[in-house]
Parts: sequence; C-alpha cells; structure tokens
Amino acid sequence: MRRKDATWILTAQCPSRLGTVDVVTRFLKECRCYITEQQSFDDRHGERFFIRTAFQPEETDFDADTFQAAFAARAAEFDMVFELTAPEARMPVVIMVSKADHCLNDLLYRYRTGQLPVTIRAVISNHPDLEPLVAWHDLPYYHLPITPETKAEQEAEVWRVIESTGAELVILARYMQVLSSELCEKLTGKAINIHHSLLPGFKGAKPYHQAFEKGVKLVGATAHYINDDLDEGPIITQGVEPVSHADDPEDLVAKGRDIECLTLARAVSLHLERRVFLHARRTVVFAR
Amino acid sequence: MRRKDATWILTAQCPSRLGTVDVVTRFLKECRCYITEQQSFDDRHGERFFIRTAFQPEETDFDADTFQAAFAARAAEFDMVFELTAPEARMPVVIMVSKADHCLNDLLYRYRTGQLPVTIRAVISNHPDLEPLVAWHDLPYYHLPITPETKAEQEAEVWRVIESTGAELVILARYMQVLSSELCEKLTGKAINIHHSLLPGFKGAKPYHQAFEKGVKLVGATAHYINDDLDEGPIITQGVEPVSHADDPEDLVAKGRDIECLTLARAVSLHLERRVFLHARRTVVFAR
Amino acid sequence: MRRKDATWILTAQCPSRLGTVDVVTRFLKECRCYITEQQSFDDRHGERFFIRTAFQPEETDFDADTFQAAFAARAAEFDMVFELTAPEARMPVVIMVSKADHCLNDLLYRYRTGQLPVTIRAVISNHPDLEPLVAWHDLPYYHLPITPETKAEQEAEVWRVIESTGAELVILARYMQVLSSELCEKLTGKAINIHHSLLPGFKGAKPYHQAFEKGVKLVGATAHYINDDLDEGPIITQGVEPVSHADDPEDLVAKGRDIECLTLARAVSLHLERRVFLHARRTVVFAR
Amino acid sequence: MRRKDATWILTAQCPSRLGTVDVVTRFLKECRCYITEQQSFDDRHGERFFIRTAFQPEETDFDADTFQAAFAARAAEFDMVFELTAPEARMPVVIMVSKADHCLNDLLYRYRTGQLPVTIRAVISNHPDLEPLVAWHDLPYYHLPITPETKAEQEAEVWRVIESTGAELVILARYMQVLSSELCEKLTGKAINIHHSLLPGFKGAKPYHQAFEKGVKLVGATAHYINDDLDEGPIITQGVEPVSHADDPEDLVAKGRDIECLTLARAVSLHLERRVFLHARRTVVFAR
Repeated sequence: MRRKDATWILTAQCPSRLGTVDVVTRFLKECRCYITEQQSFDDRHGERFFIRTAFQPEETDFDADTFQAAFAARAAEFDMVFELTAPEARMPVVIMVSKADHCLNDLLYRYRTGQLPVTIRAVISNHPDLEPLVAWHDLPYYHLPITPETKAEQEAEVWRVIESTGAELVILARYMQVLSSELCEKLTGKAINIHHSLLPGFKGAKPYHQAFEKGVKLVGATAHYINDDLDEGPIITQGVEPVSHADDPEDLVAKGRDIECLTLARAVSLHLERRVFLHARRTVVFAR
Repeated sequence: MRRKDATWILTAQCPSRLGTVDVVTRFLKECRCYITEQQSFDDRHGERFFIRTAFQPEETDFDADTFQAAFAARAAEFDMVFELTAPEARMPVVIMVSKADHCLNDLLYRYRTGQLPVTIRAVISNHPDLEPLVAWHDLPYYHLPITPETKAEQEAEVWRVIESTGAELVILARYMQVLSSELCEKLTGKAINIHHSLLPGFKGAKPYHQAFEKGVKLVGATAHYINDDLDEGPIITQGVEPVSHADDPEDLVAKGRDIECLTLARAVSLHLERRVFLHARRTVVFAR
Repeated sequence: MRRKDATWILTAQCPSRLGTVDVVTRFLKECRCYITEQQSFDDRHGERFFIRTAFQPEETDFDADTFQAAFAARAAEFDMVFELTAPEARMPVVIMVSKADHCLNDLLYRYRTGQLPVTIRAVISNHPDLEPLVAWHDLPYYHLPITPETKAEQEAEVWRVIESTGAELVILARYMQVLSSELCEKLTGKAINIHHSLLPGFKGAKPYHQAFEKGVKLVGATAHYINDDLDEGPIITQGVEPVSHADDPEDLVAKGRDIECLTLARAVSLHLERRVFLHARRTVVFAR
Repeated sequence: MRRKDATWILTAQCPSRLGTVDVVTRFLKECRCYITEQQSFDDRHGERFFIRTAFQPEETDFDADTFQAAFAARAAEFDMVFELTAPEARMPVVIMVSKADHCLNDLLYRYRTGQLPVTIRAVISNHPDLEPLVAWHDLPYYHLPITPETKAEQEAEVWRVIESTGAELVILARYMQVLSSELCEKLTGKAINIHHSLLPGFKGAKPYHQAFEKGVKLVGATAHYINDDLDEGPIITQGVEPVSHADDPEDLVAKGRDIECLTLARAVSLHLERRVFLHARRTVVFAR
C-alpha cells in the first residue's frame, strides 16, 4: 500500500488553452511519478485554468530542483505559474492577535498536536495579554502596541518580524486593527484573516451587534485573504451557526467563537494543502 | 396516552411585569386544562413578555368563547394581547407567485398531503404560467398581470382577493414584484416572504448574481414578515447551502431552490403552530 | 466564453499503475479536446484508480464512436473500463414506489422542470394510490401488486418493464418491498435506494420507530446502490436532520421526509453526472 | 434592563397531572419572583412532566433555604422532584481522560475563559501523558494506571477522588476504559461520556475504523449519560461531520476530533444550565 507521507504536490494556473492538463500529466509520467489525486478546473468566465496534483515518485532518486527546472521550460509555453511542495513541508508562519484568544488557542493546539504542518515563527500582538499562552508553547511573542500616532511605525515593526522570520503566511487570528493599505498590499495572498460575520454582510466593526440589531437567525464567520479592500478580500471558506431571539450580542459573541475557530482552521489547512488558488478577486478551492 | 389532536394553543404577549406567567397558568388550572407544552421568554431589551401554551381540557364541555371572555378580563390587567387556537384549526391562506414554481410546488405538496394545516383559498400570479399546476390541485388561480402603469390597480385587485377569501395569511412564494408601501402596511405581520439570500446580505434584485460576484462560499434564504421596508421585515428563519467556485450564477439559482423551499415551509409551519411572535422589528420564535 | 452544454464526460477506472492519468489526458489532447474539469483518485487500500474528465472538443467533427474505438485500444493496456457520456444525454429511468409519495413527487418536480437529465420511462408500484400524480405528468404507471405467493411472478413483471423500457437506472423511491436476491443481483450498480436512516444504524423496517426507542437526537437518510445484501449496498450520500424529545415516531417520519427527498435527489444527480464510481462494496464520489 | 447574572433556575419533574405548571408558577408569583424564561414538556408516552424555570427575585431578601423548604411542601403533593440552582453557581467537576487530549484541551480552554461555570477539582487519567497540560492550568492530575488485574482497585481509587473532591459531575473526555457496572451504577446520571460515533451505530471500540469499513459519508459523535449498559446511556446531543472516500481511518479520527469536542462541550453546557432531564432511558433537553 502506498504511503501517504511520501506525497508531493504540484499546483499550477495559466490561461485556458488546449493541452493545459496534458503538459502537467505527461511530464509527471515521464518523470515516473504516480498521480494519487488530481483536480483541475477551468474558469470559463475568467478563461483561466487551475490544477492541483498529488503524486509519488516511483524512483528513489527524485530530485525537486531537477524536476522544477525541467518543468519550468514546458510551463513557460503556457504562461503557467506553478509551485512544487515537498512531503512533510512545514510552512513558516506568523500569527497576529489582539486580546481574544480563542482562535490562537485553537491554532496552537492543532500546531502542538501536529495537525497543522507549519512552523510558527512568532506571535505578534498589540496587547500583552496572550503572552503566557504563547510562552507555554515555547514560541516568541512580540508585543507591538499601537496608537493612531504610532501606526506606521508599528506596522513597520510588524513587517520586520514577518520578514526576519521568513514567514510565508500571516494568520490574522482576530487581530483587531485595520491594516494600512501599504501593509495589505505587501500581504496580498500571503495573509488569511478571520472575520466574524458572513461577509459581505456585517462588514466592519462589531458584526455581532449588527446581527443582533437585524434579528438574524444565523451568524457566521468568513476566512479570506487580505487584499487592499478591507473585509473584501477573496473568500476561502465560510461557516454558520444558528442563533435565536434569546441571544444577546454577548451571546452571539460567545456562540460565534467555535465557528470562527473552525472556519479559520479549515481555511489555513486548505491553504497549507495547496488547495486554494487565488486569481483576481476570487478563489478556487479544491476541497477534499 | 393523551391524544395530540386534542391540543389547544394559547399565545400571548405583554409588557414585562411580575405575574405574567401566573396569570396564564393559574387560569388554565382553574379551567381544568392540562398544559402539555409551554414556553415563555422575557425580552429584557424591549421589556416585553411572550408565552405560548399548548393544553388539553380535562372536561368535555370546554367552550372557547367562554374561555376567551373570562381570560380577557384577567389579560386586560397586564395589557396582554392573546390568541386562542383550536385543535385542527386550518388557517385560510392566499399564495402569491410569479413564474418560478419551486416554492409553490412544495407548498401545494405539503398542503395536499396534510402537512400544512391551512385552507388555500387562492393562488395569485402576475403571470399565467402556473395555472395548470394550481388547477391540478383544484384551487382557484387569479392571473393579475402588472405593469408600472397598472400597479395601483393590480394591487387593489390583489387586496380584493385577499379580503374576499378571508385569508389570514399571505405567502409570497417568490412573487417577484415589489409591493407598494400601502399594501405592505396592510399586510404587516400577515404576510411571509421568502428572499433568496441571507438577509441583510444581498438585498434587492438578483441576489445570486450578487453572491457570485462576491465569490461567497455559502448561499442562503430568508423567510420574513412583510413590513414597510423592503427586504427588512422581521426575520422568522434562515437556511444555508454551501457553494463553490464552480457554481455559475445559474448554478446558484438552482442550488438555492431547495433551501428556499425548506426555509419558507419551515417559516409557514412555525407561523401556523403559533410559534412566532412579532414585536417591533424582531421576532421571538419558540422552536420545537 | 465556453458553453456548458457542450461538455462531454469521460469516466474510467482501472488498477493503480504509473501512467493512468496520462493515458486519458494525452489522448484527449491528441483529439483536441479541452479539459474543463477533472478529478482523479487512487484508492491505496484497494490499489485502484478512478478518473472523471469533463471536456469540450475544439473541432466540430468530433465523433463519439471514433473516439471510443480509438481510446479502447489504449485503455486495454491498463485494464481500464471507461464510459463516454454525451452532452445533454438523458438516461432512461424507471421509478419504483409504494404508497408514500414524497420522494416521487420531488423527483417528478425536478424532472418536469428540467433539473434531472433523465427520461422517465415508467413508474412501478405495488399499490394503485399514486397513479393520478403520475398520470398528471403523462407518464406510464404500472400497478404490480405483490403478495408472498406472487412475489416471484411480480418481480418477473417488474424486470420485464425495466428491460422493455430500456431503463439504465432504477430508482427505489420508498418502494417498501424487500427485493429478492435474484432481482438485486440483476440491479447491482443500476439501482439506487433511499433508506430512511443513517445506515448502518437502524437497518430494516420502521427505522424511525427504532430511532425513537433509542432516543437519538439526529435522524437521517441514506442513498445507496442495491446489491445482494439488504440495506448494505454501497453508500452514495447521507443526510441528517436534528430531532428532539418532543418528536413521536410519527413526527420523526414527517421530519425525515424532506431529508429523504434531498438525499435521494442528490444521489441521483451525482449518478447522472457520472460522479459516482462503484468498486467492491464502496463508492468513490467526486463531489462538485 | 434586567441583569442576566441574577437569574435562578428551578427544574422539576413529576407524573403528569392537572396543575403541574401552576404549582410551580403560582409559588414563584407568591415569592415575588419574575420568570424570565420557562419551558415545560409532557411526555405522553411516559406520562411524565418536566419543567425548567429561570427567574429573578424582585425582593432583595430572597432566601434559597426558605424558598426550598416552602416549595417542598407543595411539590410533595405532586410527587415532584426539584432542584434550585443559584446564579453563578459553579458545579464541582472531575474530568477523566486517557491519552487523547482534544476534548480535555477544549474543556480546559472553555474553563479558563469562563465559558463553563464549573470548578474543575481534578483530572484523572490512566496515563501520565496529559499531566503537563493540566499542570499549566494549575489543576491536580491523578495518574491512576489500570491493568485487567488492577481494574477493581483502580476504580476504587477513581471513586475516592470523585467522592473526596465533592464532584457532582464526571466528564469522560475520551477515557478509553470500559467502566465496571458497579462504577457505572454509582455514576448514573452524574457522568457524561463522549462516544466517537452516531450511536447506536458503531458501538464499542474503533468506531472510525468501523465507519471506514462501511463506507459511510457522515461520521459523528454522541454525548450521553453513563448508565449500566455500555454505549447505551441516554443521549444528550449528537453532532455530525461529512467525510468522503478519500478519508482513511486515520483521517476519520482527525476529522472527528472537532465534532467530538463541540458535542461534548454542548452536552456539558446543557447539563450545567439544567436543560437536560433524565428519565428512564431517555432525556428531555430544553434547548436554547
């Protein structure tokens, strides 16, 4: 029986054109790689092609550099951008939080138990509160307070941490500050935020209070990539929770916590498994 | 074992005050009525009290008129409005549709099989298309076409049908015309609409196209009472359906049909079972 | 923009072996067919490979027979069985029912409105009750009553209808008779049944009564292929519905109807879209 | 506006008889207690009545002992058993675990953040592994290893911890030992277990492996009270999670973790809020 932990992932996207699948799968065959799972999709509106391939080399001398160099030549003909991910790859990550710790606690638990294939390089917060939790997990904690006056400075500091740790993904796990458009731009496609509403409903601050005012019977959470338009970044996944007339705004806050945790964790997992493709303002998500 | 089909329902609401439950339950005890199910709720924000009581008289000579007259005196002390519903009561109903027939078909099926305790007095449409379906169920069909010029006239006709049939509930089962504020006012609390989005997201026309543009991963439906503010009436219930990048607007329309049917049917059932209370812009829903 | 209604589907399965994807996709490239959606899966336990490819020919002279003949030669090398489905193909279907009509009504509605790409050739029932509903849809109704003594005879009659109508799929939409193992064998992989429980829980008769006895808080429905072991056929999809202490067995029956309809309709759609693969006692389902 | 944190809860059950609600609500009125939320239910099969009342005394000199003594006299006439719960009451609890820590971690998080109104008096495990996690929360950890030979002894030790800590609830948060019928009996109605399947499906060991074998498309979790029949105790709540052909048994284990945590936490919350009534082999659950 094939081992799951020997699986490489190749993802790619390019303009729609005859032969987009063939250029990938023929190459894998030539490299003697067995495809264990593959999904492709053609966005007929955007005329763009997306593919995700999980494979296992049949030869022991498989070399990633050689593979990539050789495939790059073929991909170029299709204007194809691609990424190769090694088995057991662990993506370096920075998590940003404020005071609420439910999403952080959930992510740290999954990290500690090996459910999230990441290396958490740092946790950044504009408050000192969550330092003990992070310390217990033996992770560095950067307390970077922020005021309207120091925003630019603080964000420069944040960026310094992200860069110096080599983080390839930033997780905004209920970081309650609006990022400047400069920072948003730098983080485009590299940062996942959890918003505590079913976007585009209840954008902005205090969505549970807005939901209470409207008397909705469902609340939800939205995990999305950061882009330059606040709370309008491309959506990765959404979750939902029934509520009732008996729920005060504080009850909604409490009820929403679980679905926020689950929705964020699901989005991060999909991203780490290279199941999410970003193009223009939309995502393609090859669900399991 | 007690029979379910001998159950009366008493619902009431009034300002919050000591003794609101007691005034109801003591009276029922005195009338020798056994309470089989009861729910009450105090809205501490609005300082208003809501109660729903299902009961079975232990005496065979229970008389509704006597009961109501006697209870009215006590209720008056609490500024309590109440309603008594007999076992097996069938509410007279008018359904309004346009061309889409999924909600109508669903309601007619539930009606035909006895799942909905109503008497459908008429189906009104601004199009002729659904006449055969309605005819097969032996129900009167009013084709009342509408143009911007004839809107006032058509609505007068609609109102005439509602009044002449004695309808106590109007179900807008994908009636695709915006009602005038005059008609909305007349129908306040007496008409249930199904909107094909998770309100307050995607108000107005073509919500599935809006949803596609935003790249959401969930679509939904909202059943709400009509009031004077379009798509802002008090919400009764909401349903949700996962969607993906592969869904075109037409796919969303198709995927949404089932959840629209289910959400509308659930709202109508809750209303018929007297589980929904309307107060200001909100509902209290005592779910089963 | 590519048209969706010009899409062919090629499905295939074979033993796991290097090149299984390539043999399909290279051939499609050579035939100048653009792949719009593809999913493949390797069952590492059963060492078996499954693929579903949706494609659009770029040439106007695409010929299905030529395609199949040519591909058969290549597929043979891999012991690959495959099926090619034309755009807008309508599968001939027979539906079997008893007295309960909710699933039938739902299927007929979807059929009438073009949501199900089938041609319903006949409805068979062991009772006369549902004849008027079927007649309204202008479909032939075979009333084939059954008693323990006439079972063999009746099943021969059933089989005659299936064969003479050329049905490629039989939908057991709450047909309340246990099929003989002979008939089951003939229908293996060609018949979908809806069972009103979350199999393997509550097999056999009166599952809602069993559920009530156990005091479960969820009921459900299971759509599965028929095989020789009653209620043990390979599962296609399952649905679930919350229930409470207040639900009598009859309430569970009523609450279960919607989820039975939805689960059966989903399974039939997945089957018609060639998203379900049957191998041994399991299914592979490439969900949308 | 009334404060939520001043709310007392009175729960009761007794045989069905005229006046069961009145005996409760009239007394509350006489004591000048305002009822903020009330639910009652008559089990017509078992002919038993259940009621839960949340109330706020209008007088500052409300005294629980006086209240209970006075009410006991009235309740006695109805063979009514009742319980009065003070605002902000914190139930003493013992948690039992083995090696898997997801449910424990989840419970400890909710405890630490004040979401669970309990006092955790001890964590008992038959393994040493989870000691550091418990220590970080400053809670006592009892490592009580067990072998077939020492089972009786170990259980005596377990019981000693439960008794000495005054625990009123034992939470079996994936404790992987079968309790003896003696211990089960002692814990009847006082212990909540999480089983990782949709009971009564997949009882016993390795339910996810059983689920994989059957090829189910949904897995789930069941929180139930312990009684003398293993995995057959009265169900409090159940949760469900979709799975696919691509999920190995280990994937099912991983996917099931979240729903196990949520289902157990929900059951514990319902129990703490006195929303669950136990009678014979069934529960009545007054959901929010």
